[in-house]
Amino acid sequence: MNWKLAARAAKMNPSVLREILKVTERPGIISLAGGLPSPKTFPIQAFADACAELLHKDGQAALQYAASEGYAPLRQAVADMLPWNVDPAQVLITTGSQQGLDLVAKVLLDPGSKVLVETPTYLGALQAFGPMEPEPVSVASDDDGVIVEDLVAKAKDARFIYLLPNFQNPTGRTMTEERRAAVSAAAAAAGLPIVEDNPYGELWFDEAPPLPLTARNPEGCIYLGSFSKVLAPGLRLGFLVAPKAIYPKLLQAKQAVDLHTPIFTQRMVSAVMKDNFLDSHVPTIRALYKRQRDAMIAALKREMAGLDVKFNAPKGGMFLWARMPEGIDTVALLPKAVERNVAFVPGAPFYAGQGDPRTLRLSFVTASVEEIDVAIAALALTLREELALLAERKLAPEPA
Amino acid sequence: MNWKLAARAAKMNPSVLREILKVTERPGIISLAGGLPSPKTFPIQAFADACAELLHKDGQAALQYAASEGYAPLRQAVADMLPWNVDPAQVLITTGSQQGLDLVAKVLLDPGSKVLVETPTYLGALQAFGPMEPEPVSVASDDDGVIVEDLVAKAKDARFIYLLPNFQNPTGRTMTEERRAAVSAAAAAAGLPIVEDNPYGELWFDEAPPLPLTARNPEGCIYLGSFSKVLAPGLRLGFLVAPKAIYPKLLQAKQAVDLHTPIFTQRMVSAVMKDNFLDSHVPTIRALYKRQRDAMIAALKREMAGLDVKFNAPKGGMFLWARMPEGIDTVALLPKAVERNVAFVPGAPFYAGQGDPRTLRLSFVTASVEEIDVAIAALALTLREELALLAERKLAPEPA
Repeated sequence: MNWKLAARAAKMNPSVLREILKVTERPGIISLAGGLPSPKTFPIQAFADACAELLHKDGQAALQYAASEGYAPLRQAVADMLPWNVDPAQVLITTGSQQGLDLVAKVLLDPGSKVLVETPTYLGALQAFGPMEPEPVSVASDDDGVIVEDLVAKAKDARFIYLLPNFQNPTGRTMTEERRAAVSAAAAAAGLPIVEDNPYGELWFDEAPPLPLTARNPEGCIYLGSFSKVLAPGLRLGFLVAPKAIYPKLLQAKQAVDLHTPIFTQRMVSAVMKDNFLDSHVPTIRALYKRQRDAMIAALKREMAGLDVKFNAPKGGMFLWARMPEGIDTVALLPKAVERNVAFVPGAPFYAGQGDPRTLRLSFVTASVEEIDVAIAALALTLREELALLAERKLAPEPA
Repeated sequence: MNWKLAARAAKMNPSVLREILKVTERPGIISLAGGLPSPKTFPIQAFADACAELLHKDGQAALQYAASEGYAPLRQAVADMLPWNVDPAQVLITTGSQQGLDLVAKVLLDPGSKVLVETPTYLGALQAFGPMEPEPVSVASDDDGVIVEDLVAKAKDARFIYLLPNFQNPTGRTMTEERRAAVSAAAAAAGLPIVEDNPYGELWFDEAPPLPLTARNPEGCIYLGSFSKVLAPGLRLGFLVAPKAIYPKLLQAKQAVDLHTPIFTQRMVSAVMKDNFLDSHVPTIRALYKRQRDAMIAALKREMAGLDVKFNAPKGGMFLWARMPEGIDTVALLPKAVERNVAFVPGAPFYAGQGDPRTLRLSFVTASVEEIDVAIAALALTLREELALLAERKLAPEPA
């Protein structure tokens, strides 16, 4: 048969990460790799009650086709939850916030379109934008987010800038209030739309992060949110908020993709969220993840002592970002770590441009405190061995 | 803000049907328009039992992130259910079979690619393919499906032909065994891949339809299936089966779109399907829909007597196709029918090329037998009035 693939399909390659990380599903491995929320945080009983009541009281509607825009009470709940004035008519329920990225790409990106991203950025966004064949351009970034001067320099003809200001994936960094104000003003001045992704914003440890960029300029931003980190990811439930000028196109793209997000899961979540459930539930997630972040930082300080290993202390979210000593390539380090029963994600694939091979991402949410201690010790051991090997090679005589 | 849309977004227009049909949600209207399965057929108690057990026994896994390929036992169940030798590794679980169309388009269609479709064809497929900007080409069709000679004449350089052989949407027609054999042979000889969509195949009334096209040449076909019509559409659960050469690209496209289909609904359906549940459940749907089809045909014969109205007698599925007398445009007829509290779908939007304005689609599954009687009488009355108006205009003196 003459299966001729689309040009974009040739560029779809098996996710490097995914292939590497398949081995980490092996029993006995402590994975600091995946971005899996702790299943201890899933409100199972609340979901069970919601399902029972929903099917008992309104089963036919909960199982029938539904509106592409999403379940009206859930759209209202999303609007109510957000810290700026959102009309529920601007809320589109998506099959996970990942789908929001696909829809945004379909509506805003032509082949060759310039799209600005952070350095590094969320790998899943690069993968979602990929099929529309844009040219992602990395904007220089520091610990506070993207650097405004570089944003301004690269803004011309860009379709949008994709930003993850809170506890970013992969770095865990948060854009400061000052930086947000400057980025928002610079983007508005340049007429550059912002696509703001905020799956982790509720997972703050000591204080809530500054206001979203969208709250500062709703007409200039598309905002993506998710229930994956505050309730459960297996329902694949997210949302986007778009200016009224853009919303109809996103809705049409949504209809063509899956008609609507499963109404059953939308109604489950809507029911669970009643009576301000998240107000009492989310603090328990924050407390758990904070303890585990603290444990990871303590373990890193203890186990990496004396090594030139840099790491940050995220103020929320799920991930910590680290940089290994000179000479280390974390892609090469990973299989050796897996041999010692610990897994992480190498940092390089998260860069739209040239990646930093010394970086890696560690999740502190899936493994327990005890597992984190064991895993970081194993990682340090792997690293020390690798450094010894490098030193040996340096001392070895040059090949003749 | 400088929101510059992608070229494809300019071509996304609000679905004509959707806009017209919004009025049909008005209370008191009997809709023969939508493709909504009868909610009486949803096995609510079986879903309630499945949810309760699932959350009790395995709640954490049912709510966690999961594999992009789908839930392994469900993939196995799909493979077991299909009437040819399917390896579960070829099964991809999708967020409704609509998503399968989006993935197929992403992987196989470039801008300008020729894609062959039936005359008429499923509107949702045209909408799903649209964002990849192909050129759909209508293959002439009769009551038995596409006409082989025209398929052969148009096959050159087409990326695939999209076919819905069983109780097609919108026409309700079924491709005969003889036609399937000829289409399968002609497509294979031309090296033309087939995308076979089979959401309605299980809803046969007197005898099962002939073997799918994919069963005749699995390496030359992608097969799309759905749980929407045999269990419930609100879960948005479908699947595709693809040759091993194509599967990895579809999987990568799937990952980028929504990571995976909600695992909770996958496990619900997997649990409900245990112990051959469908073997006893689906016959109850068939019996209900058959009664309603019979009622619709009887009502059409009774109410349309003396009018030049043609309609078919589908052997299964959800839809009946009718052609109104000369001079009638069903798009213009619809608002008048809605005034008389009945709605249908005009046929013209279902054509990739020039539509036949006299055609319309009637669903016999959502409305009860009593409602069908009332609705068809109201439709006939609307039609008779419209015909009288046309006759009057003909008799009127020519404008000077």
